[in-house]
Amino acid sequence: MPELRKDPVVGRWVIISTERSRRPTNFHSENPTVAQTFSPFADGRENMTPPEVYAVRPPGGKANGPGWTVRVVPNKFPALEIEGQLERRGEGLYDKMNGIGAHEVVVEGSDPDRQLAEQPVEQIQQVLVAFRERMLDLKKDRRLRYVLVFKNQGAGAGATLEHPHSQIIATPIIPRMVQEELDGARRYYELKERCVFTDILDQEMSEGNGRRIVSTTERFVALAPYAPRFPFETWILPREHRSSYHMITDPEEFLDLARILKDTLQRLNVALDTPPFNFVLHTAPLADDDLPYYHWHFEIMPKLTRVAGFEIGSGFYINPTPPEDAAQYLREIVALA
Amino acid sequence: MPELRKDPVVGRWVIISTERSRRPTNFHSENPTVAQTFSPFADGRENMTPPEVYAVRPPGGKANGPGWTVRVVPNKFPALEIEGQLERRGEGLYDKMNGIGAHEVVVEGSDPDRQLAEQPVEQIQQVLVAFRERMLDLKKDRRLRYVLVFKNQGAGAGATLEHPHSQIIATPIIPRMVQEELDGARRYYELKERCVFTDILDQEMSEGNGRRIVSTTERFVALAPYAPRFPFETWILPREHRSSYHMITDPEEFLDLARILKDTLQRLNVALDTPPFNFVLHTAPLADDDLPYYHWHFEIMPKLTRVAGFEIGSGFYINPTPPEDAAQYLREIVALA
Repeated sequence: MPELRKDPVVGRWVIISTERSRRPTNFHSENPTVAQTFSPFADGRENMTPPEVYAVRPPGGKANGPGWTVRVVPNKFPALEIEGQLERRGEGLYDKMNGIGAHEVVVEGSDPDRQLAEQPVEQIQQVLVAFRERMLDLKKDRRLRYVLVFKNQGAGAGATLEHPHSQIIATPIIPRMVQEELDGARRYYELKERCVFTDILDQEMSEGNGRRIVSTTERFVALAPYAPRFPFETWILPREHRSSYHMITDPEEFLDLARILKDTLQRLNVALDTPPFNFVLHTAPLADDDLPYYHWHFEIMPKLTRVAGFEIGSGFYINPTPPEDAAQYLREIVALA
Repeated sequence: MPELRKDPVVGRWVIISTERSRRPTNFHSENPTVAQTFSPFADGRENMTPPEVYAVRPPGGKANGPGWTVRVVPNKFPALEIEGQLERRGEGLYDKMNGIGAHEVVVEGSDPDRQLAEQPVEQIQQVLVAFRERMLDLKKDRRLRYVLVFKNQGAGAGATLEHPHSQIIATPIIPRMVQEELDGARRYYELKERCVFTDILDQEMSEGNGRRIVSTTERFVALAPYAPRFPFETWILPREHRSSYHMITDPEEFLDLARILKDTLQRLNVALDTPPFNFVLHTAPLADDDLPYYHWHFEIMPKLTRVAGFEIGSGFYINPTPPEDAAQYLREIVALA
């Protein structure tokens, strides 16, 4: 069973994983490329994964059989485990709990070689709906406090399997950076009685501005944030205030989100020669899912620079590309969608 | 001039650098190995760097001439610049300031191929003294609030030059993670009236414990922290409570620190086949350098895993190696020093 441990100074929780490699020699062979030729996620290989927790199939399709278009399965090597009681304990001045949680893989399509950005918008829409459905299901588990949806694409971004997939980790604590974002947004709201994300959108979209806007759709805006940690970091924000992603109900809204996500990933691919990237879905905690001060959004981070000692030691990032320049490069790419 | 910008939600400052590559095409060629054959830091090439700000030379040696053993020079491509007035401004709801600060390179020896761990302890002692001397000098500049000393060794840890060196960045703000550590340590002190780092040392060194201790010297302890973010993360803490590194005055203390640093780096080299690593010196802010609740220390982080979407999005780390196991592996290595 993995263990959650809290740093006694900064209060940062870490997962001490037991399902993954751990001896010193296991680190030697780490290869910087994903040399994946065989995909355990391909159509027809459903028995190579744990039984699915969600799937999209044509009518009449059988669970854990072939023919699906999107499939969500538990991670075979989970960082957190779903079985057991959540137990908090002390160890002298230290605090820990057992590693209860969920770790799932969202297989974004049955073709191992077709990356998310190359999928039709309707397929991307299905993936985005799958995120919501899993959130709603995991929300029923009262031990869980947060659902983090993220994607690592490319070895440089931490992917270990080539087959296009995202991941979901549900945690028994609210992760530190999520809490900091919530705290910051709440402080702004207390001062102004307005959502900071809505104010950001208003300022960025105002007349004579737009220098950091990458693209817009009916319901969404893709922009380079004012203080990005990474070159070409791009956020996708809904125009309408809503604190939780799972509150989206309109299929049209998912389709519009799929459009702007595909468009953004394609622009990054053209500008940066298909870079490795991470995206993270920022949304409110499960128990406080309707907050006036928070606004769900995606943060997309191409992996172009290395996080080094300075960033790790200070939390202070050096970004060589002004967001105004990044947005301009991305805007000037002719839309491919 | 670089610019410091603050994220309006979490309050995270970033440096938008103007001295480094920025166009999309500059990222394409990024090479994962440091293919350095020519060192601008070698003995006899003193004119290839900006004039030195500190150096150790035999008596009679001329500034910016050859024959030095340790040399500190301004970074030729600084993340922050030393000239100018610190100006804070708003831009709608955003906050920024100009990028005032210092960015220096500590050349750890004249031989481009001799890594820090391979140097005699007396040479490492000189490097450690250089950190202190630069801190004391930068402290005189009232625009600066923090001095961050760190080292990136190996391309995987963000090094761009092979020649062994550390870096110093002095900033006009207290970096976010430093502030969080200070806040956490202060809260503990308010509750217990004891320094949390001293309590950690007491607990780790107590009878029947020692599972996370790597090695000890007369004045220092090297240990695997209870909640490490990274496999084989190792901290070096002074036994004596002192909040600021620059408060060390005894040459013997620097020599003892050099001994345990060399020993720790050598153990990591043997256990992990000379891994890329970062180290970061944690010390109190310049203006509050004598705090009852804070305790300076080194954090050494071998770069064995990739920081991916989950960690970036949550600040929540998955570590596959329990610190008790890491400490045991490192302890069992026969000391080479």
